Amino acid sequence: MRIISEVRSFGGVQGVYSPKSESTGTDMTFAVFVPDHVPGARLPVLWYVSGLTCTHANVMVKGEYRAACAEYGLVLVAPDTIPRGDDVPDAEDEYDFGKGAGFYVDATEQPWAEHYRMRSYLEQELSALITENFPVDMERQSITGHSMGGHGALTVALRNPETFRSVSAFSPIVAPSQVPWGEKALGRDRAAWREYDAVTLIKDGANCPPLLVDQGTADDFLEEQLQTDRLIEACKANSISAEIRMQDGYDHSYFFISTFMTEHIAWHARFLSA
Amino acid sequence: MRIISEVRSFGGVQGVYSPKSESTGTDMTFAVFVPDHVPGARLPVLWYVSGLTCTHANVMVKGEYRAACAEYGLVLVAPDTIPRGDDVPDAEDEYDFGKGAGFYVDATEQPWAEHYRMRSYLEQELSALITENFPVDMERQSITGHSMGGHGALTVALRNPETFRSVSAFSPIVAPSQVPWGEKALGRDRAAWREYDAVTLIKDGANCPPLLVDQGTADDFLEEQLQTDRLIEACKANSISAEIRMQDGYDHSYFFISTFMTEHIAWHARFLSA
Repeated sequence: MRIISEVRSFGGVQGVYSPKSESTGTDMTFAVFVPDHVPGARLPVLWYVSGLTCTHANVMVKGEYRAACAEYGLVLVAPDTIPRGDDVPDAEDEYDFGKGAGFYVDATEQPWAEHYRMRSYLEQELSALITENFPVDMERQSITGHSMGGHGALTVALRNPETFRSVSAFSPIVAPSQVPWGEKALGRDRAAWREYDAVTLIKDGANCPPLLVDQGTADDFLEEQLQTDRLIEACKANSISAEIRMQDGYDHSYFFISTFMTEHIAWHARFLSA
Repeated sequence: MRIISEVRSFGGVQGVYSPKSESTGTDMTFAVFVPDHVPGARLPVLWYVSGLTCTHANVMVKGEYRAACAEYGLVLVAPDTIPRGDDVPDAEDEYDFGKGAGFYVDATEQPWAEHYRMRSYLEQELSALITENFPVDMERQSITGHSMGGHGALTVALRNPETFRSVSAFSPIVAPSQVPWGEKALGRDRAAWREYDAVTLIKDGANCPPLLVDQGTADDFLEEQLQTDRLIEACKANSISAEIRMQDGYDHSYFFISTFMTEHIAWHARFLSA
Protein backbone atom coordinates (compact mmCIF):
# COMPACT_ATOMS: atom_id res chain seq x y z
CA MET A 1 0.00 0.00 0.00
CA ARG A 2 1.57 3.25 -1.12
CA ILE A 3 2.00 5.65 1.80
CA ILE A 4 1.71 9.31 0.81
CA SER A 5 2.15 10.68 4.33
CA GLU A 6 1.81 9.74 7.98
CA VAL A 7 1.77 12.59 10.47
CA ARG A 8 1.36 12.71 14.22
CA SER A 9 -1.84 14.48 15.28
CA PHE A 10 -4.03 14.43 18.39
CA GLY A 11 -2.05 11.56 19.89
CA GLY A 12 -2.50 9.39 16.82
CA VAL A 13 -1.44 9.11 13.21
CA GLN A 14 -3.16 10.87 10.30
CA GLY A 15 -2.19 8.91 7.22
CA VAL A 16 -2.82 9.28 3.50
CA TYR A 17 -2.50 6.26 1.20
CA SER A 18 -2.85 5.78 -2.52
CA PRO A 19 -2.76 2.17 -3.67
CA LYS A 20 -3.89 0.99 -7.08
CA SER A 21 -7.59 0.11 -7.20
CA GLU A 22 -8.95 -2.92 -9.05
CA SER A 23 -12.43 -1.43 -9.04
CA THR A 24 -11.62 1.85 -10.71
CA GLY A 25 -8.43 0.99 -12.58
CA THR A 26 -6.72 4.02 -11.04
CA ASP A 27 -4.75 4.88 -7.94
CA MET A 28 -7.31 5.71 -5.25
CA THR A 29 -6.26 7.99 -2.41
CA PHE A 30 -7.79 7.80 1.05
CA ALA A 31 -7.09 9.19 4.52
CA VAL A 32 -7.10 7.16 7.75
CA PHE A 33 -6.76 8.50 11.28
CA VAL A 34 -5.66 5.91 13.84
CA PRO A 35 -5.60 7.11 17.44
CA ASP A 36 -3.02 5.70 19.83
CA HIS A 37 -4.20 2.42 21.32
CA VAL A 38 -3.05 -0.59 23.30
CA PRO A 39 -0.85 -2.82 21.09
CA GLY A 40 -2.95 -5.54 19.55
CA ALA A 41 -6.22 -3.66 20.11
CA ARG A 42 -8.71 -3.50 17.25
CA LEU A 43 -10.69 -0.28 17.03
CA PRO A 44 -14.14 0.49 15.62
CA VAL A 45 -14.31 2.27 12.28
CA LEU A 46 -16.20 5.40 11.30
CA TRP A 47 -16.39 6.08 7.57
CA TYR A 48 -16.69 9.67 6.33
CA VAL A 49 -17.89 10.01 2.75
CA SER A 50 -17.37 13.40 1.08
CA GLY A 51 -19.43 15.65 -1.16
CA LEU A 52 -19.30 17.05 -4.69
CA THR A 53 -15.88 18.37 -5.79
CA CYS A 54 -14.18 16.95 -2.68
CA THR A 55 -11.22 14.63 -2.24
CA HIS A 56 -10.12 12.67 0.85
CA ALA A 57 -8.44 15.89 2.00
CA ASN A 58 -11.41 18.19 2.66
CA VAL A 59 -12.57 16.52 5.85
CA MET A 60 -9.01 15.67 6.85
CA VAL A 61 -8.09 19.35 6.80
CA LYS A 62 -11.36 21.02 7.78
CA GLY A 63 -13.52 18.39 9.52
CA GLU A 64 -12.15 18.70 13.07
CA TYR A 65 -12.71 14.99 13.79
CA ARG A 66 -9.39 13.93 15.33
CA ALA A 67 -9.99 15.15 18.89
CA ALA A 68 -13.22 13.16 19.21
CA CYS A 69 -11.87 10.09 17.41
CA ALA A 70 -8.92 10.08 19.81
CA GLU A 71 -11.24 10.50 22.77
CA TYR A 72 -13.53 7.64 21.76
CA GLY A 73 -10.86 5.41 20.21
CA LEU A 74 -12.27 5.33 16.68
CA VAL A 75 -10.47 4.90 13.37
CA LEU A 76 -11.81 7.36 10.77
CA VAL A 77 -11.56 6.47 7.07
CA ALA A 78 -12.09 9.19 4.44
CA PRO A 79 -12.12 7.90 0.83
CA ASP A 80 -11.81 10.02 -2.27
CA THR A 81 -15.08 10.70 -4.12
CA ILE A 82 -14.11 9.61 -7.65
CA PRO A 83 -11.36 7.97 -9.70
CA ARG A 84 -8.73 10.42 -10.94
CA GLY A 85 -6.15 10.62 -13.69
CA ASP A 86 -5.93 11.64 -17.33
CA ASP A 87 -7.53 8.36 -18.48
CA VAL A 88 -10.71 9.03 -16.50
CA PRO A 89 -13.45 10.73 -18.55
CA ASP A 90 -14.72 14.03 -17.25
CA ALA A 91 -17.34 16.65 -18.03
CA GLU A 92 -15.30 19.82 -18.24
CA ASP A 93 -16.46 22.87 -16.33
CA GLU A 94 -19.26 20.92 -14.65
CA TYR A 95 -18.79 20.58 -10.90
CA ASP A 96 -21.76 18.26 -10.58
CA PHE A 97 -21.00 15.75 -13.34
CA GLY A 98 -17.98 13.63 -14.21
CA LYS A 99 -15.00 14.23 -11.96
CA GLY A 100 -16.14 15.43 -8.58
CA ALA A 101 -19.54 13.78 -8.89
CA GLY A 102 -19.25 10.01 -8.51
CA PHE A 103 -22.41 9.68 -6.40
CA TYR A 104 -21.06 6.36 -5.05
CA VAL A 105 -22.57 4.35 -7.89
CA ASP A 106 -21.19 1.68 -10.20
CA ALA A 107 -21.68 3.39 -13.56
CA THR A 108 -23.20 1.28 -16.36
CA GLU A 109 -23.06 3.68 -19.30
CA GLN A 110 -20.15 4.71 -21.52
CA PRO A 111 -17.75 6.40 -21.17
CA TRP A 112 -18.20 6.15 -17.38
CA ALA A 113 -18.54 2.43 -16.76
CA GLU A 114 -14.85 1.57 -16.88
CA HIS A 115 -13.60 3.79 -14.06
CA TYR A 116 -16.60 5.14 -12.15
CA ARG A 117 -17.13 2.15 -9.87
CA MET A 118 -17.26 3.88 -6.51
CA ARG A 119 -19.86 1.54 -4.99
CA SER A 120 -17.69 -1.54 -5.54
CA TYR A 121 -14.62 0.37 -4.46
CA LEU A 122 -16.17 1.59 -1.23
CA GLU A 123 -18.27 -1.37 -0.15
CA GLN A 124 -15.83 -4.10 -1.10
CA GLU A 125 -12.32 -3.18 -2.13
CA LEU A 126 -11.53 -0.38 0.31
CA SER A 127 -13.32 -2.21 3.08
CA ALA A 128 -11.01 -5.20 2.53
CA LEU A 129 -7.94 -2.96 2.36
CA ILE A 130 -8.82 -1.33 5.67
CA THR A 131 -9.41 -4.73 7.27
CA GLU A 132 -6.01 -6.00 6.16
CA ASN A 133 -3.88 -2.96 6.85
CA PHE A 134 -5.19 -1.20 9.95
CA PRO A 135 -5.91 -2.15 13.59
CA VAL A 136 -9.67 -2.31 13.06
CA ASP A 137 -12.62 -4.37 14.25
CA MET A 138 -14.88 -4.55 11.20
CA GLU A 139 -17.68 -5.97 13.34
CA ARG A 140 -17.99 -2.41 14.62
CA GLN A 141 -18.51 0.04 11.75
CA SER A 142 -20.54 3.19 11.34
CA ILE A 143 -20.76 5.68 8.51
CA THR A 144 -21.32 9.38 8.01
CA GLY A 145 -20.93 11.86 5.17
CA HIS A 146 -21.71 15.27 3.74
CA SER A 147 -24.06 16.30 0.92
CA MET A 148 -23.38 13.86 -1.95
CA GLY A 149 -21.46 11.92 0.69
CA GLY A 150 -24.47 12.09 2.97
CA HIS A 151 -26.33 10.39 0.12
CA GLY A 152 -23.45 7.92 -0.03
CA ALA A 153 -23.54 7.22 3.70
CA LEU A 154 -27.31 6.79 3.77
CA THR A 155 -27.53 4.51 0.74
CA VAL A 156 -24.54 2.36 1.73
CA ALA A 157 -26.02 1.91 5.21
CA LEU A 158 -29.54 1.21 3.95
CA ARG A 159 -28.23 -1.45 1.57
CA ASN A 160 -26.00 -2.95 4.28
CA PRO A 161 -27.79 -2.47 7.59
CA GLU A 162 -26.09 -5.55 9.03
CA THR A 163 -22.66 -3.97 8.44
CA PHE A 164 -23.24 -0.56 10.00
CA ARG A 165 -24.30 -0.01 13.57
CA SER A 166 -25.30 3.60 12.95
CA VAL A 167 -25.46 6.14 10.15
CA SER A 168 -25.40 9.92 10.19
CA ALA A 169 -25.17 12.69 7.66
CA PHE A 170 -24.52 16.41 7.31
CA SER A 171 -26.79 18.15 4.79
CA PRO A 172 -27.37 14.97 2.76
CA ILE A 173 -28.95 14.59 -0.65
CA VAL A 174 -31.78 12.36 0.52
CA ALA A 175 -33.70 11.73 -2.71
CA PRO A 176 -31.34 12.17 -5.69
CA SER A 177 -33.88 10.74 -8.12
CA GLN A 178 -36.19 13.69 -7.34
CA VAL A 179 -33.67 16.55 -7.63
CA PRO A 180 -31.50 18.10 -10.35
CA TRP A 181 -28.14 16.83 -9.09
CA GLY A 182 -29.33 13.23 -9.11
CA GLU A 183 -31.38 13.50 -12.30
CA LYS A 184 -28.20 14.64 -14.03
CA ALA A 185 -25.82 12.10 -12.51
CA LEU A 186 -27.73 8.85 -12.24
CA GLY A 187 -27.99 7.93 -15.93
CA ARG A 188 -30.76 6.78 -18.27
CA ASP A 189 -31.85 3.58 -16.51
CA ARG A 190 -34.30 5.00 -13.99
CA ALA A 191 -35.17 1.56 -12.63
CA ALA A 192 -31.56 1.23 -11.44
CA TRP A 193 -31.90 4.43 -9.44
CA ARG A 194 -33.92 2.80 -6.66
CA GLU A 195 -30.91 1.44 -4.82
CA TYR A 196 -29.08 4.76 -5.07
CA ASP A 197 -31.80 6.81 -3.43
CA ALA A 198 -32.19 6.84 0.35
CA VAL A 199 -35.84 7.84 0.39
CA THR A 200 -36.71 5.15 -2.18
CA LEU A 201 -34.74 2.52 -0.27
CA ILE A 202 -36.71 3.39 2.85
CA LYS A 203 -40.01 3.29 0.96
CA ASP A 204 -38.95 -0.09 -0.46
CA GLY A 205 -38.64 -1.38 3.09
CA ALA A 206 -34.91 -1.26 3.81
CA ASN A 207 -33.85 -1.70 7.38
CA CYS A 208 -32.18 1.42 8.71
CA PRO A 209 -29.51 1.55 11.41
CA PRO A 210 -29.96 4.30 14.03
CA LEU A 211 -29.97 7.57 12.05
CA LEU A 212 -28.85 11.11 12.86
CA VAL A 213 -28.98 14.03 10.39
CA ASP A 214 -27.96 17.66 10.77
CA GLN A 215 -29.12 20.17 8.17
CA GLY A 216 -28.44 23.91 8.18
CA THR A 217 -31.39 26.21 7.58
CA ALA A 218 -29.19 28.73 5.68
CA ASP A 219 -27.93 26.06 3.28
CA ASP A 220 -28.30 27.40 -0.28
CA PHE A 221 -28.95 23.87 -1.60
CA LEU A 222 -31.67 22.95 0.89
CA GLU A 223 -34.74 23.77 -1.15
CA GLU A 224 -33.74 22.55 -4.59
CA GLN A 225 -31.26 19.72 -4.03
CA LEU A 226 -31.46 18.42 -0.46
CA GLN A 227 -35.14 18.51 0.46
CA THR A 228 -34.68 17.10 3.93
CA ASP A 229 -38.46 16.93 4.38
CA ARG A 230 -38.59 13.95 2.03
CA LEU A 231 -36.42 11.98 4.45
CA ILE A 232 -38.43 13.09 7.46
CA GLU A 233 -41.64 11.95 5.76
CA ALA A 234 -40.21 8.63 4.56
CA CYS A 235 -38.91 7.83 8.05
CA LYS A 236 -42.28 8.69 9.55
CA ALA A 237 -44.21 6.63 7.03
CA ASN A 238 -41.95 3.62 7.57
CA SER A 239 -41.67 3.86 11.36
CA ILE A 240 -37.94 4.60 11.31
CA SER A 241 -36.97 6.56 14.39
CA ALA A 242 -34.50 9.09 13.07
CA GLU A 243 -33.08 12.18 14.72
CA ILE A 244 -33.19 14.84 12.00
CA ARG A 245 -32.19 18.27 13.25
CA MET A 246 -32.56 21.60 11.46
CA GLN A 247 -29.67 23.81 12.62
CA ASP A 248 -30.58 27.46 12.62
CA GLY A 249 -28.46 29.76 10.45
CA TYR A 250 -25.88 27.19 9.33
CA ASP A 251 -24.83 26.82 5.70
CA HIS A 252 -23.47 23.94 3.59
CA SER A 253 -19.78 24.39 4.42
CA TYR A 254 -17.21 22.81 6.70
CA PHE A 255 -17.86 25.71 9.10
CA PHE A 256 -21.16 23.88 9.65
CA ILE A 257 -19.84 20.32 9.49
CA SER A 258 -17.02 20.93 11.95
CA THR A 259 -19.46 22.51 14.40
CA PHE A 260 -21.41 19.28 14.78
CA MET A 261 -18.66 16.72 14.04
CA THR A 262 -17.90 16.03 17.70
CA GLU A 263 -21.58 15.39 18.42
CA HIS A 264 -21.84 12.96 15.52
CA ILE A 265 -18.74 11.06 16.62
CA ALA A 266 -19.95 10.88 20.22
CA TRP A 267 -23.31 9.63 18.97
CA HIS A 268 -21.73 6.92 16.79
CA ALA A 269 -19.42 5.94 19.67
CA ARG A 270 -22.45 4.92 21.74
CA PHE A 271 -23.25 2.24 19.15
CA LEU A 272 -19.63 1.28 18.47
CA SER A 273 -18.32 0.98 22.00
CA ALA A 274 -19.77 -2.39 22.97
CA MET B 1 -15.24 47.89 6.76
CA ARG B 2 -15.56 45.64 3.76
CA ILE B 3 -17.16 42.31 4.70
CA ILE B 4 -15.92 39.40 2.61
CA SER B 5 -17.98 36.74 4.41
CA GLU B 6 -19.76 36.03 7.68
CA VAL B 7 -20.66 32.42 8.37
CA ARG B 8 -22.30 30.71 11.31
CA SER B 9 -19.97 28.27 13.06
CA PHE B 10 -19.77 26.77 16.54
CA GLY B 11 -22.57 28.97 17.79
CA GLY B 12 -20.84 32.14 16.65
CA VAL B 13 -19.87 34.04 13.53
CA GLN B 14 -16.67 33.45 11.56
CA GLY B 15 -16.09 36.60 9.57
CA VAL B 16 -13.55 37.71 7.00
CA TYR B 17 -12.99 41.44 6.38
CA SER B 18 -10.77 43.36 4.00
CA PRO B 19 -10.69 47.13 4.59
CA LYS B 20 -8.07 49.45 3.14
CA SER B 21 -5.03 49.82 5.38
CA GLU B 22 -3.29 53.14 5.99
CA SER B 23 -0.18 51.35 7.22
CA THR B 24 0.44 49.17 4.18
CA GLY B 25 -1.37 51.13 1.49
CA THR B 26 -3.24 48.00 0.46
CA ASP B 27 -6.42 46.19 1.35
CA MET B 28 -5.60 44.01 4.35
CA THR B 29 -7.69 40.90 4.97
CA PHE B 30 -8.27 39.45 8.42
CA ALA B 31 -10.53 36.86 10.06
CA VAL B 32 -12.48 37.34 13.28
CA PHE B 33 -14.46 34.72 15.18
CA VAL B 34 -17.07 36.12 17.54
CA PRO B 35 -18.87 33.57 19.72
CA ASP B 36 -22.45 34.17 20.69
CA HIS B 37 -22.68 36.37 23.77
CA VAL B 38 -25.06 38.39 25.88
CA PRO B 39 -26.04 41.58 24.01
CA GLY B 40 -23.79 44.41 25.10
CA ALA B 41 -21.11 42.10 26.47
CA ARG B 42 -17.47 42.83 25.60
CA LEU B 43 -15.31 39.75 25.14
CA PRO B 44 -11.56 39.22 25.62
CA VAL B 45 -9.44 38.97 22.47
CA LEU B 46 -6.93 36.30 21.46
CA TRP B 47 -4.71 37.22 18.51
CA TYR B 48 -3.36 34.46 16.27
CA VAL B 49 -0.41 35.49 14.10
CA SER B 50 0.47 33.19 11.19
CA GLY B 51 3.67 31.82 9.69
CA LEU B 52 5.59 32.03 6.43
CA THR B 53 3.47 31.72 3.25
CA CYS B 54 0.22 31.93 5.25
CA THR B 55 -2.78 34.23 4.98
CA HIS B 56 -5.59 34.84 7.49
CA ALA B 57 -7.20 31.67 6.13
CA ASN B 58 -4.78 28.96 7.23
CA VAL B 59 -5.69 29.00 10.89
CA MET B 60 -9.33 29.80 10.10
CA VAL B 61 -9.63 26.60 8.05
CA LYS B 62 -7.19 24.28 9.84
CA GLY B 63 -6.62 25.65 13.33
CA GLU B 64 -9.62 24.09 15.12
CA TYR B 65 -9.98 27.07 17.49
CA ARG B 66 -13.70 27.79 17.31
CA ALA B 67 -14.93 25.16 19.77
CA ALA B 68 -12.64 26.42 22.54
CA CYS B 69 -13.21 30.11 21.74
CA ALA B 70 -16.96 29.48 21.97
CA GLU B 71 -16.52 27.58 25.25
CA TYR B 72 -14.43 30.30 26.88
CA GLY B 73 -16.13 33.26 25.22
CA LEU B 74 -13.09 34.65 23.39
CA VAL B 75 -12.92 36.61 20.15
CA LEU B 76 -10.10 35.32 17.93
CA VAL B 77 -8.46 37.68 15.43
CA ALA B 78 -6.27 36.25 12.63
CA PRO B 79 -4.51 38.90 10.51
CA ASP B 80 -2.87 38.32 7.17
CA THR B 81 0.95 38.06 7.24
CA ILE B 82 1.87 40.62 4.56
CA PRO B 83 0.45 43.28 2.27
CA ARG B 84 -0.81 41.92 -1.06
CA GLY B 85 -1.49 43.21 -4.54
CA ASP B 86 0.38 43.81 -7.78
CA ASP B 87 1.91 47.04 -6.42
CA VAL B 88 3.62 45.24 -3.56
CA PRO B 89 7.22 44.19 -4.32
CA ASP B 90 8.03 40.51 -4.05
CA ALA B 91 10.99 38.16 -4.34
CA GLU B 92 9.75 35.65 -6.90
CA ASP B 93 10.09 31.97 -6.12
CA GLU B 94 11.31 32.65 -2.58
CA TYR B 95 8.89 31.46 0.09
CA ASP B 96 10.94 33.05 2.86
CA PHE B 97 11.42 36.55 1.45
CA GLY B 98 9.11 39.23 0.09
CA LYS B 99 5.48 38.13 -0.09
CA GLY B 100 4.80 35.48 2.52
CA ALA B 101 7.62 36.68 4.78
CA GLY B 102 6.67 39.96 6.46
CA PHE B 103 8.20 39.00 9.84
CA TYR B 104 5.94 41.59 11.49
CA VAL B 105 8.45 44.40 11.04
CA ASP B 106 8.17 47.93 9.70
CA ALA B 107 10.58 47.73 6.76
CA THR B 108 13.06 50.59 6.38
CA GLU B 109 14.78 49.67 3.11
CA GLN B 110 13.66 50.00 -0.50
CA PRO B 111 11.69 48.63 -2.22
CA TRP B 112 10.01 47.23 0.93
CA ALA B 113 9.51 50.29 3.12
CA GLU B 114 6.37 51.58 1.44
CA HIS B 115 4.10 48.57 1.95
CA TYR B 116 5.76 46.17 4.40
CA ARG B 117 4.64 47.89 7.60
CA MET B 118 3.19 44.93 9.46
CA ARG B 119 4.28 46.06 12.92
CA SER B 120 2.38 49.34 12.64
CA TYR B 121 -0.55 47.55 11.03
CA LEU B 122 -0.79 44.93 13.75
CA GLU B 123 0.02 46.88 16.88
CA GLN B 124 -1.86 50.06 16.01
CA GLU B 125 -4.15 50.08 12.99
CA LEU B 126 -5.76 46.66 13.25
CA SER B 127 -5.96 46.92 17.00
CA ALA B 128 -7.96 50.14 16.62
CA LEU B 129 -10.18 48.59 13.92
CA ILE B 130 -10.99 45.64 16.17
CA THR B 131 -11.76 47.97 19.07
CA GLU B 132 -14.18 49.99 16.97
CA ASN B 133 -15.98 47.24 15.11
CA PHE B 134 -16.31 44.20 17.38
CA PRO B 135 -17.73 43.48 20.84
CA VAL B 136 -14.31 43.36 22.51
CA ASP B 137 -12.73 44.35 25.78
CA MET B 138 -9.24 45.49 24.79
CA GLU B 139 -8.21 45.54 28.44
CA ARG B 140 -8.16 41.76 28.09
CA GLN B 141 -5.91 40.68 25.22
CA SER B 142 -3.58 37.73 24.71
CA ILE B 143 -1.58 36.65 21.68
CA THR B 144 -0.38 33.44 20.07
CA GLY B 145 1.10 32.43 16.74
CA HIS B 146 2.94 29.84 14.68
CA SER B 147 6.53 29.79 13.40
CA MET B 148 7.18 33.27 11.92
CA GLY B 149 3.91 34.17 13.67
CA GLY B 150 5.28 32.68 16.89
CA HIS B 151 8.11 35.16 16.47
CA GLY B 152 5.46 37.82 15.84
CA ALA B 153 3.48 36.89 18.95
CA LEU B 154 6.56 36.79 21.18
CA THR B 155 8.06 40.06 19.99
CA VAL B 156 4.76 41.97 20.01
CA ALA B 157 4.10 40.73 23.57
CA LEU B 158 7.64 41.45 24.80
CA ARG B 159 7.48 44.99 23.42
CA ASN B 160 3.98 45.52 24.86
CA PRO B 161 3.79 43.48 28.08
CA GLU B 162 1.21 45.87 29.52
CA THR B 163 -1.15 45.14 26.62
CA PHE B 164 -1.09 41.34 26.66
CA ARG B 165 -2.01 39.24 29.65
CA SER B 166 -0.39 36.11 28.24
CA VAL B 167 1.55 34.96 25.18
CA SER B 168 1.95 31.53 23.62
CA ALA B 169 3.46 30.11 20.48
CA PHE B 170 3.54 27.00 18.33
CA SER B 171 7.02 26.18 16.95
CA PRO B 172 8.16 29.83 17.06
CA ILE B 173 11.25 31.37 15.53
CA VAL B 174 12.74 32.55 18.83
CA ALA B 175 15.97 34.21 17.69
CA PRO B 176 15.62 35.34 14.06
CA SER B 177 18.87 37.31 14.19
CA GLN B 178 20.75 34.04 14.79
CA VAL B 179 19.16 31.87 12.05
CA PRO B 180 18.98 31.90 8.23
CA TRP B 181 15.32 32.93 7.92
CA GLY B 182 15.89 36.04 10.03
CA GLU B 183 19.35 36.85 8.64
CA LYS B 184 17.71 36.93 5.22
CA ALA B 185 14.61 38.90 6.12
CA LEU B 186 15.67 41.50 8.69
CA GLY B 187 17.70 43.80 6.44
CA ARG B 188 21.11 45.45 6.66
CA ASP B 189 20.73 47.48 9.87
CA ARG B 190 21.60 44.83 12.44
CA ALA B 191 21.19 47.27 15.34
CA ALA B 192 17.50 47.53 14.43
CA TRP B 193 17.10 43.76 14.77
CA ARG B 194 17.13 43.84 18.59
CA GLU B 195 13.46 44.69 18.92
CA TYR B 196 12.47 42.04 16.38
CA ASP B 197 14.15 39.16 18.19
CA ALA B 198 12.47 37.52 21.19
CA VAL B 199 15.65 36.15 22.75
CA THR B 200 17.39 39.52 22.40
CA LEU B 201 14.40 41.37 23.87
CA ILE B 202 14.52 39.02 26.87
CA LYS B 203 18.28 39.51 27.25
CA ASP B 204 17.72 43.25 27.04
CA GLY B 205 15.42 42.99 30.03
CA ALA B 206 11.93 43.04 28.53
CA ASN B 207 9.08 42.10 30.81
CA CYS B 208 7.35 38.95 29.63
CA PRO B 209 3.70 38.07 30.16
CA PRO B 210 3.03 34.45 31.19
CA LEU B 211 4.51 32.32 28.39
CA LEU B 212 3.58 28.92 26.92
CA VAL B 213 5.36 27.31 23.96
CA ASP B 214 4.76 23.99 22.19
CA GLN B 215 7.43 22.67 19.84
CA GLY B 216 7.31 19.38 17.95
CA THR B 217 10.40 17.17 18.11
CA ALA B 218 9.89 15.96 14.51
CA ASP B 219 9.77 19.52 13.16
CA ASP B 220 12.13 19.74 10.16
CA PHE B 221 12.90 23.39 10.99
CA LEU B 222 13.77 22.86 14.64
CA GLU B 223 17.53 22.56 14.42
CA GLU B 224 18.35 25.20 11.84
CA GLN B 225 15.62 27.83 12.12
CA LEU B 226 13.73 27.51 15.40
CA GLN B 227 16.34 26.57 18.00
CA THR B 228 13.95 26.48 20.94
CA ASP B 229 16.88 25.98 23.32
CA ARG B 230 17.86 29.62 22.89
CA LEU B 231 14.50 30.67 24.34
CA ILE B 232 14.75 28.16 27.19
CA GLU B 233 18.20 29.50 28.10
CA ALA B 234 17.21 33.15 27.81
CA CYS B 235 14.19 32.61 30.04
CA LYS B 236 16.30 30.78 32.60
CA ALA B 237 19.03 33.45 32.60
CA ASN B 238 16.46 36.21 33.03
CA SER B 239 14.25 34.47 35.59
CA ILE B 240 11.23 34.30 33.28
CA SER B 241 9.03 31.39 34.26
CA ALA B 242 7.97 29.93 30.91
CA GLU B 243 6.27 26.65 30.10
CA ILE B 244 8.14 25.39 27.03
CA ARG B 245 7.08 21.89 26.01
CA MET B 246 8.76 19.59 23.50
CA GLN B 247 5.99 17.48 21.92
CA ASP B 248 7.22 14.06 20.90
CA GLY B 249 6.87 13.15 17.23
CA TYR B 250 4.99 16.26 16.10
CA ASP B 251 5.97 18.22 13.00
CA HIS B 252 5.58 21.87 11.91
CA SER B 253 2.11 21.58 10.38
CA TYR B 254 -1.45 22.38 11.37
CA PHE B 255 -1.84 18.70 12.30
CA PHE B 256 0.42 19.69 15.21
CA ILE B 257 -1.05 23.15 15.88
CA SER B 258 -4.65 21.93 15.94
CA THR B 259 -3.68 19.18 18.41
CA PHE B 260 -2.67 21.71 21.06
CA MET B 261 -4.89 24.65 20.10
CA THR B 262 -7.56 23.86 22.70
CA GLU B 263 -4.93 23.67 25.46
CA HIS B 264 -3.48 27.03 24.44
CA ILE B 265 -6.89 28.68 24.39
CA ALA B 266 -7.81 27.20 27.78
CA TRP B 267 -4.47 28.43 29.16
CA HIS B 268 -5.00 31.97 27.82
CA ALA B 269 -8.58 31.94 29.12
CA ARG B 270 -7.27 31.64 32.68
CA PHE B 271 -5.58 35.01 32.31
CA LEU B 272 -8.36 36.61 30.29
CA SER B 273 -11.37 35.59 32.33
CA ALA B 274 -11.05 38.04 35.22
